[in-house]
Amino acid sequence: MVLGHESAGIVVDVGSAVSSLRKGSRVALEPGVPCRRCTACKGGKYNLCEHMIFAATPPYDGTLARFYRLPADLCYELPEHVSLEEGAVVEPLSVAVHIVRQSGLRPGDTVVVFGAGPVGLLCLAVARAFGAAKTVTVDINDERCRFAESFAATGAFRPAKDESAEQGAARLVAESDVGAGFDVAIDASGAAVCIQTAIHALRRGGSYVQGGMGRPEIEFPITAMCTKELHMHGSFRYGTGDYKLAVEMIASGKIEVKRLITGRFPFRDAEEAFRQTKAAKGIKILIEGPEDEP
Amino acid sequence: MVLGHESAGIVVDVGSAVSSLRKGSRVALEPGVPCRRCTACKGGKYNLCEHMIFAATPPYDGTLARFYRLPADLCYELPEHVSLEEGAVVEPLSVAVHIVRQSGLRPGDTVVVFGAGPVGLLCLAVARAFGAAKTVTVDINDERCRFAESFAATGAFRPAKDESAEQGAARLVAESDVGAGFDVAIDASGAAVCIQTAIHALRRGGSYVQGGMGRPEIEFPITAMCTKELHMHGSFRYGTGDYKLAVEMIASGKIEVKRLITGRFPFRDAEEAFRQTKAAKGIKILIEGPEDEP
Amino acid sequence: MVLGHESAGIVVDVGSAVSSLRKGSRVALEPGVPCRRCTACKGGKYNLCEHMIFAATPPYDGTLARFYRLPADLCYELPEHVSLEEGAVVEPLSVAVHIVRQSGLRPGDTVVVFGAGPVGLLCLAVARAFGAAKTVTVDINDERCRFAESFAATGAFRPAKDESAEQGAARLVAESDVGAGFDVAIDASGAAVCIQTAIHALRRGGSYVQGGMGRPEIEFPITAMCTKELHMHGSFRYGTGDYKLAVEMIASGKIEVKRLITGRFPFRDAEEAFRQTKAAKGIKILIEGPEDEP
Amino acid sequence: MVLGHESAGIVVDVGSAVSSLRKGSRVALEPGVPCRRCTACKGGKYNLCEHMIFAATPPYDGTLARFYRLPADLCYELPEHVSLEEGAVVEPLSVAVHIVRQSGLRPGDTVVVFGAGPVGLLCLAVARAFGAAKTVTVDINDERCRFAESFAATGAFRPAKDESAEQGAARLVAESDVGAGFDVAIDASGAAVCIQTAIHALRRGGSYVQGGMGRPEIEFPITAMCTKELHMHGSFRYGTGDYKLAVEMIASGKIEVKRLITGRFPFRDAEEAFRQTKAAKGIKILIEGPEDEP
Repeated sequence: MVLGHESAGIVVDVGSAVSSLRKGSRVALEPGVPCRRCTACKGGKYNLCEHMIFAATPPYDGTLARFYRLPADLCYELPEHVSLEEGAVVEPLSVAVHIVRQSGLRPGDTVVVFGAGPVGLLCLAVARAFGAAKTVTVDINDERCRFAESFAATGAFRPAKDESAEQGAARLVAESDVGAGFDVAIDASGAAVCIQTAIHALRRGGSYVQGGMGRPEIEFPITAMCTKELHMHGSFRYGTGDYKLAVEMIASGKIEVKRLITGRFPFRDAEEAFRQTKAAKGIKILIEGPEDEP
Repeated sequence: MVLGHESAGIVVDVGSAVSSLRKGSRVALEPGVPCRRCTACKGGKYNLCEHMIFAATPPYDGTLARFYRLPADLCYELPEHVSLEEGAVVEPLSVAVHIVRQSGLRPGDTVVVFGAGPVGLLCLAVARAFGAAKTVTVDINDERCRFAESFAATGAFRPAKDESAEQGAARLVAESDVGAGFDVAIDASGAAVCIQTAIHALRRGGSYVQGGMGRPEIEFPITAMCTKELHMHGSFRYGTGDYKLAVEMIASGKIEVKRLITGRFPFRDAEEAFRQTKAAKGIKILIEGPEDEP
Repeated sequence: MVLGHESAGIVVDVGSAVSSLRKGSRVALEPGVPCRRCTACKGGKYNLCEHMIFAATPPYDGTLARFYRLPADLCYELPEHVSLEEGAVVEPLSVAVHIVRQSGLRPGDTVVVFGAGPVGLLCLAVARAFGAAKTVTVDINDERCRFAESFAATGAFRPAKDESAEQGAARLVAESDVGAGFDVAIDASGAAVCIQTAIHALRRGGSYVQGGMGRPEIEFPITAMCTKELHMHGSFRYGTGDYKLAVEMIASGKIEVKRLITGRFPFRDAEEAFRQTKAAKGIKILIEGPEDEP
Repeated sequence: MVLGHESAGIVVDVGSAVSSLRKGSRVALEPGVPCRRCTACKGGKYNLCEHMIFAATPPYDGTLARFYRLPADLCYELPEHVSLEEGAVVEPLSVAVHIVRQSGLRPGDTVVVFGAGPVGLLCLAVARAFGAAKTVTVDINDERCRFAESFAATGAFRPAKDESAEQGAARLVAESDVGAGFDVAIDASGAAVCIQTAIHALRRGGSYVQGGMGRPEIEFPITAMCTKELHMHGSFRYGTGDYKLAVEMIASGKIEVKRLITGRFPFRDAEEAFRQTKAAKGIKILIEGPEDEP
């Protein structure tokens, strides 16, 4: 199966009914084609469409190809000053946009994001662009924490090994100076202890989004969720308006996705790109299209 | 400590600034007095007030007393045709109103409620009054299921012992004929297996409310919650407008709370009332005020 | 041009990919086909699609025809006990469902509807089914008021000729016993004086929906709207879920649309049907399809 | 009557139960004390309280006084680096925060604000801080337009005398390059022609807020509002969280309110300050408290 779903490219041809694009348009590709007819699609939640055709999700091939066919409304034209490289990062940025939107974040809110990988970092940046007053990163890796602080976090928290989730949460809240708890918590790690800590670190009535994926079942503090009357939301891919907003945020300079691009490989060395990504070297590693090759 | 927080009574005196009530008014009592000044109170979520003074919650005495003092805005006048007995059931009905409101239920939705105790039964009735198209009760007790069906459930489901949560959910969805899953699931049981089954029985984008309380931590299907993009909400007591709506629903005959009153004891036999409640005899057992005694 | 957009019929053939319907299915027809690709469509608001193909809206022919082609997802199967006649009334009922949904009506709210024509009557019925505590009809025609009260209104109000909008509103609020004003006001008349009265009859923070259409511009109390912090919503046709809910409400007996059907004409007498409708005789007059003719 | 409701000051004494403030605290004053018990107050909308005691609103005196008594929860402590002068501008900034919140503005939205007086300017700045992609100012005064562009507007539009509202709207939309219309329109002028133009300049499903006040009744394009399914909201003063967010936006440097302060007068020359404000000289003119005098 062909891999790839984070990509940008140049339009080589359009159908006769297409007016929004033309040959030569530089576009970011939204890699899922919904059925457009089910209740989810017609209800504004096409990311939940059960008939979705998604790149690199069996049995459908992905975008690591010389040519890829996509409906025009899923191609987002990039302004001149936005590079194709930045266009490829629209995908993970859209994931983050969707996560933060699911949280119902309001300007002035305090936010904590667990996990400082690409999605966690982008969630911090989106939260800040949405007007969050505080954006705290939580990660066990010092280097990641420092990068997060240089990128979009107003503070960093390193969990201690011997703390319970409740103890860690209490320390996180106190060190972050957020009163009785955070307004919003986002998990971009999938780790059980992060999820537990997040629940305990929220104020009453606070909002939580599950963005990361780990074990399918975890030990979960359900009573705290109930009595603090928390609001929890799943987040799956991206939907209406997410790609458009992600492009706008890059184009306007609100989010510097360039800083996340830590490697580039020609198409023929794609395997090495995957090897380094798997080894967690750098943040985002790009594979250049064949047309850029000598 | 004095117990009691589900109660109604007759006003014996009012302060000079009170115009909404007078001596002799028959009222349902909302048993929590919020601080009215914190962020939660001013934000329309006074049930989340950290300074709440709540009846029978230490160190505050409850309402099982001859006289009880309460701000006028927390006393809800009962229309003539509504009895004090019904007035006492406004409290658990308000719990159910709050739970169903937390779910964001929309008319035409399909709803499943786990647990057919008083709160579960009232959740079914509230969901139906809010326009739910289907209201399915889940309980292991046959008699409770039958009562639920006679009261407000459009169907009943009895879990099987040897089923996994996912198997039970699949059977529940199929037997209830609700397509890809329920729109809304409410847990009024607190049991881990119910909570797990509920998550698996929801459609993508569905809504869940935790109403019941059991163990503080449970094994929870977090990945299903994430990828189905569910919305989960805690529910704690009742807040703005809940008591008022509960009274309206009783007064208009939309919910027949009388049917839940299965026993009555004079004040001097209150201990026996508690004994029977603890033994799960009947549904709601009332203790009559001393003024009703011979 | 062929007229007609309120209709039901029997499926004569389906495409090979259709599984939700089969030859012989009895269906209500949603008469607008959206583009499914624009921002409105993908955002869950397909009724606002600028590329909509709507029956009997130039240049598109309507449904007063022996055969009509429609995508399967816009055909709503009718349960056996629901007649095709009732199926034809799903269209105006969906208009009413959409209007009431736009209002954000919550169970327990008090509602006033201006105009007791078909849409106004159906708005009253929908509001009641959604849990409204009071549903007041306003019409200058006594007979219509009486019918509304027998159908779905809890009270009726007849405007007086010599009253200003503010005076009428004050009398309406007082006679309806709704405290400082209604929670929700719906205009299904399009008349300027109704719209003005509605604004003045709302409580602070109340909600208004414009359902009726009259003159394009009217004298409007903008300062009252501003300082009472009202929420006003337009309503255009129907969208996601409206048709489905309308069918459910008829099927479950929540709304007796049969009572609105006051006349029937065979296809060959369609002209007389239009003549009577134009003369405001009766409420809804049906034209029977040619296949029902001898 | 004593005037004044935009003010900041230094705490001279606190009651024994107050822990959030102490003598010497520098605070912005929220000048309205709600009853805290009515439905509006308990519903999170205390700005709509009918029993509000508001500074300088008869019969209540305002804040242009040496001492002023206020509940602690309505005093917002200013960080050290925020001056009392900036603190006095928290009031109009809160008005703007409330207006923009009423609009439901989402990050990435396009916004047009009619009127470039203090509130209009602050609405532009708040919209930008909330993540608006475009913020267009509309004013007939060239100087104001230029200031708005230097402050928070991404573009400016000057209405032409001989244009109808519809023509002006069409030109505004085209020159602003916002597709089929703006997502959000805010009127901070109160002028009928602005309100009409705003309605016509919105896209289908767009959102409008009435912030300015002019004549109580105006000619209004009700049919356009209906068929475009617009959402209109009044806006009255400020409520839950608005003051807190306004202080945060000043403290974090997101909004430079200092630039709006164009004059200062000692207390004894207050009359001259009012004279200049009435003559529309400058933007915001401050009156210094007596304790700052020599």
